[in-house]
Amino acid sequence: MPSTAETACFEAGIKFGSLYHQFAGTPVSPVSADSLARAMEDAIENQPHCESVDVDILVDDLASELADSTADYAELTGRFMEVEMTVEYEGTRVRTRMEMEGDYPAMRLVSVED
Amino acid sequence: MPSTAETACFEAGIKFGSLYHQFAGTPVSPVSADSLARAMEDAIENQPHCESVDVDILVDDLASELADSTADYAELTGRFMEVEMTVEYEGTRVRTRMEMEGDYPAMRLVSVED
Amino acid sequence: MPSTAETACFEAGIKFGSLYHQFAGTPVSPVSADSLARAMEDAIENQPHCESVDVDILVDDLASELADSTADYAELTGRFMEVEMTVEYEGTRVRTRMEMEGDYPAMRLVSVED
Amino acid sequence: MPSTAETACFEAGIKFGSLYHQFAGTPVSPVSADSLARAMEDAIENQPHCESVDVDILVDDLASELADSTADYAELTGRFMEVEMTVEYEGTRVRTRMEMEGDYPAMRLVSVED
Repeated sequence: MPSTAETACFEAGIKFGSLYHQFAGTPVSPVSADSLARAMEDAIENQPHCESVDVDILVDDLASELADSTADYAELTGRFMEVEMTVEYEGTRVRTRMEMEGDYPAMRLVSVED
Repeated sequence: MPSTAETACFEAGIKFGSLYHQFAGTPVSPVSADSLARAMEDAIENQPHCESVDVDILVDDLASELADSTADYAELTGRFMEVEMTVEYEGTRVRTRMEMEGDYPAMRLVSVED
Repeated sequence: MPSTAETACFEAGIKFGSLYHQFAGTPVSPVSADSLARAMEDAIENQPHCESVDVDILVDDLASELADSTADYAELTGRFMEVEMTVEYEGTRVRTRMEMEGDYPAMRLVSVED
Repeated sequence: MPSTAETACFEAGIKFGSLYHQFAGTPVSPVSADSLARAMEDAIENQPHCESVDVDILVDDLASELADSTADYAELTGRFMEVEMTVEYEGTRVRTRMEMEGDYPAMRLVSVED
């Protein structure tokens, strides 16, 4: 039988995969970054056991990429966001974080606590 | 050669398909409906020639579906939203609208004006 | 520090959330079910530590829903699929499964083995 | 009242926006490119008035981007695909095409014929 902590970590992973693949590809610009970040947080906080989601769209990185482009907006991808999330499952609290590591958006367990 | 009006209608269709398939499946509840609607509007307004987007999430319909369900949230689908959009392309303004028609979310041209 | 087993479970959750939210909303009919299932498997097997993905689209349930509808296709959602996935992370193998439980597509840890 | 040709062009646009935003962000590698292309074609061909969809994933461009990356797969985006689509609406046939133009995936009307 999987332990409570293992299940809590599984739940935390589900939220991260959901957030990323639901919203990857969304048209985003410095002007629309804020409403997108709020919607991502509120949408994923609906999911079971999700205590809090904090999405930070990296507006400076986005603006600098658009300055070198013929496009006025980009498609949302891991390069343009940092995410922190806390899941609580039967008394175990799991903290997770996403940031770029080389060319991968790395999703990491930060801590697992009873 | 396609006419300006035909191209304007093509552009209007692109925006509708984008909005629908980017956001279909997003976890949504009465509490998160508003931030999702704002993000959908702002995201699609980034796209070329898109003058305005108005998304209305049908919170009463959503609440009544959730009342009959073991779930606390639903996945966004056409049944839970009405959308109006205006595209302007080289002087032609196209108004469009989405609402349910039987079991299809019907996307319609409302008017095409020089 | 999270344990290897906890990290393996987190990785397994990421794959499930990714699969679900990337493909939820895809137009699907009995005719296109098979190519969609193969693409879902192959896409998620690209992700790190993902050993195998098996997607079964429930064509009979889909056909029976379409028989009662004015639509010729549906949007993919949890009601129309069962998924099994195996993740292997630093020697720990995690088996997971998704099937409906009431109105939720429940994603479950089946086993965690060294 | 919008003309038949204008409605046909609107329908063609819907299919393009749907295809792009349903599948943008999907993990893709040279190995999984083919099943993804087939699933995209079959999924969008379900939509009303859609006669044919042809998706070509640019495997050489994808392989060359991955050769410069620490990642083994990419997220699907316009840079990695060319798409041709034909819509038929009440006797009007619309041919469309997507390819990159600078940094935008440009979706174009090729022809509109009675």
